[in-house]
Amino acid sequence: MAVQPTWYFIQVESARYCLVMTELLEANERSQAGRARPDSKQQDEKMQIGVDSFAAQFADAGESANASASKSVRHLVERIEFADQVGLDVFGVGEHHRREFLDSAPAVILAAAAARTQRIRLTSAVTVLSAADPVRVFEEFATLDLLSQGRAEMVVGRGSFTEAFPLFGLQLEDYDSLFAEKLDLLLKLRENEFVHWSGKHRAPLTGQGVYPRPLQNPLPVWLGVGGTPESFARAGTLGLPLMVAIIGGETRRFRPLVEIYREYGRRAGHAPDKLKVGVHALGYVAETTQQAIDDFYPGYAKTVTRIGRERGWPPVTRSHFDAARSKHGALMVGNPEEVAEKILRHSQALGGVSRITFQMDVAESSQARLLRSIELLGTAVAPALREKAEEPLPGPETLNATIHSN
Amino acid sequence: MAVQPTWYFIQVESARYCLVMTELLEANERSQAGRARPDSKQQDEKMQIGVDSFAAQFADAGESANASASKSVRHLVERIEFADQVGLDVFGVGEHHRREFLDSAPAVILAAAAARTQRIRLTSAVTVLSAADPVRVFEEFATLDLLSQGRAEMVVGRGSFTEAFPLFGLQLEDYDSLFAEKLDLLLKLRENEFVHWSGKHRAPLTGQGVYPRPLQNPLPVWLGVGGTPESFARAGTLGLPLMVAIIGGETRRFRPLVEIYREYGRRAGHAPDKLKVGVHALGYVAETTQQAIDDFYPGYAKTVTRIGRERGWPPVTRSHFDAARSKHGALMVGNPEEVAEKILRHSQALGGVSRITFQMDVAESSQARLLRSIELLGTAVAPALREKAEEPLPGPETLNATIHSN
Repeated sequence: MAVQPTWYFIQVESARYCLVMTELLEANERSQAGRARPDSKQQDEKMQIGVDSFAAQFADAGESANASASKSVRHLVERIEFADQVGLDVFGVGEHHRREFLDSAPAVILAAAAARTQRIRLTSAVTVLSAADPVRVFEEFATLDLLSQGRAEMVVGRGSFTEAFPLFGLQLEDYDSLFAEKLDLLLKLRENEFVHWSGKHRAPLTGQGVYPRPLQNPLPVWLGVGGTPESFARAGTLGLPLMVAIIGGETRRFRPLVEIYREYGRRAGHAPDKLKVGVHALGYVAETTQQAIDDFYPGYAKTVTRIGRERGWPPVTRSHFDAARSKHGALMVGNPEEVAEKILRHSQALGGVSRITFQMDVAESSQARLLRSIELLGTAVAPALREKAEEPLPGPETLNATIHSN
Repeated sequence: MAVQPTWYFIQVESARYCLVMTELLEANERSQAGRARPDSKQQDEKMQIGVDSFAAQFADAGESANASASKSVRHLVERIEFADQVGLDVFGVGEHHRREFLDSAPAVILAAAAARTQRIRLTSAVTVLSAADPVRVFEEFATLDLLSQGRAEMVVGRGSFTEAFPLFGLQLEDYDSLFAEKLDLLLKLRENEFVHWSGKHRAPLTGQGVYPRPLQNPLPVWLGVGGTPESFARAGTLGLPLMVAIIGGETRRFRPLVEIYREYGRRAGHAPDKLKVGVHALGYVAETTQQAIDDFYPGYAKTVTRIGRERGWPPVTRSHFDAARSKHGALMVGNPEEVAEKILRHSQALGGVSRITFQMDVAESSQARLLRSIELLGTAVAPALREKAEEPLPGPETLNATIHSN
């Protein structure tokens, strides 16, 4: 029942992180010059399709809050199980600490799903690392990795909602230093069994071992980012795969930010195939365009308007929704054919995307509709995508449109 | 591969908690005078039988450490699934932060088990609350409760191994104040959605809501104790069910401590049926006594000797083992008939026990043997126990032996 508007939230204070405009323009020029490489390289690989959920609580009429919470979490596990069966690549569970989402302990939910799935990758989306202890987070996801036989991943971010900060006794003014420091520790824990580390926000480690060790080496850690250029630069410098939350506006507008990521990655000496880009989008698929809109819009409008009240956004209107659903808009709502086309268009606009995930709880749909949407993603969107990916790359007109829009 | 020797560890510094001897003697007198009540009351209820595991890592020859860790955790989930199938009442997973145990995130392992079980209750055994954030612990176990449709429990304790303290930046000198304060917060979180709280070891809560809310109200929280009288008094005063780790010596020696629990509970106005006592024991069942000893002793001797090296205990000898396996000894190792008898004997010695759990990893047995032992607990020990519970209570000779041994 909600979006993850990291992007909007971070914009408020992004001014102090902003790189100079010339740097953005330089990155854009390089992206134009070197376009062939990352695009072709990354389109050769199968793009991963997944679903993200925040474990929204849906109550049926007359149901107690506790009973509906239990049902909602078990329905989520059922969706993950079904996503595995229809061949989706990844399922993500968010982390929030507020009444309407039941995902305050994502590793616990993912572990239940691990016991019922065979192939699908299981990830947080995102772990609010700023407010967590990296030792506990590592322990939990390493355990998940053992349980799932090597299918665990983490997307770590600074968080978009702010309620975790007072809950865990943290100051919003430490928003970035908390994250930088905890990410540093998490990566050290991933790399070494015995860690020496000290920082400002957590007790030092003096060579203790942290267990269990995961099955995968390294356990995949993605950086979840919104619209802050410094976050893209950080992910590139660290050579971490990038998960960009794009939940409004036009997806292609993120191209310069993605190029900052690739450029910082190149400068730090990371191989291009290590610099993967994923997109977390709001989306929903139905048999027809009209059905998708009818299923998605009412819940979307309600949810985003409610969250907007906390954040000072105007109420959602139908014309705003139509714009977001249009050719370059961020919303991935439609029939399988048009959603597959849009995935490819967005991928090309960003210079090649390795993974796209659909957050569909926002529509407050029924379990039956969510399952049907997951089924269509696996049985119709994924095959269409593989087919279309073998068609020739788009001509210069599309490319120029992409570039000049920035 | 290990014991949970809370008892031994706590003894080292228990002097400063020790209540005066007269209080112990008074409690004993009361227990003698009022013996009929708690015994009959509690023996009318079906005693719960369960298994506890610390997710010990067992490696096969030639197996990599990571592969054996994954196998060991999945084998544990398989044991929980099987315990559910053979009708056991409860399965507990410990919490340690050291190489040989894979249970640093017990709620994550229990969630995987929740997805594969129907009736069995799922608990920590024990959550090291002193070193944890009660908000996170509550979130995790509330999530587990939703996933399992109301089968989650927690046993919380101060911890027996000490490695969690430096790992999470805590001082051993705060051993008790950390626990008292965090238990207070945990119980407030359980009672109220919105909590006002402040303490020395954690940031204050100023009315934030903590989510999700569990299905059970209240979510069961047991107090896990070793041999410290003050811990028994605390559990009684708070009216929390008590889980006593008895892993050595004679079980009946705990009677005065249990009476302290009951007396403090009575004084605080808690109904007797709320003051439940459970026992965590080392145990193992096989078809015959000899088979049980052959399967159990070698691993037990090895493990306890190794842990003893850290704690200054003498190496385990066969005569020590035989004493521990004898009539009043704490070890529950044998054939189904003798183990059932011993359970009842111990229950009577303690004035009525509601739950007994078997820690059997310590024997480093194969998965097949552990599964067989679980099967015998469910299909032979439990029925024998129900049968014997209907026999008349033992005569005064046994009762006096129990009392005078203290």
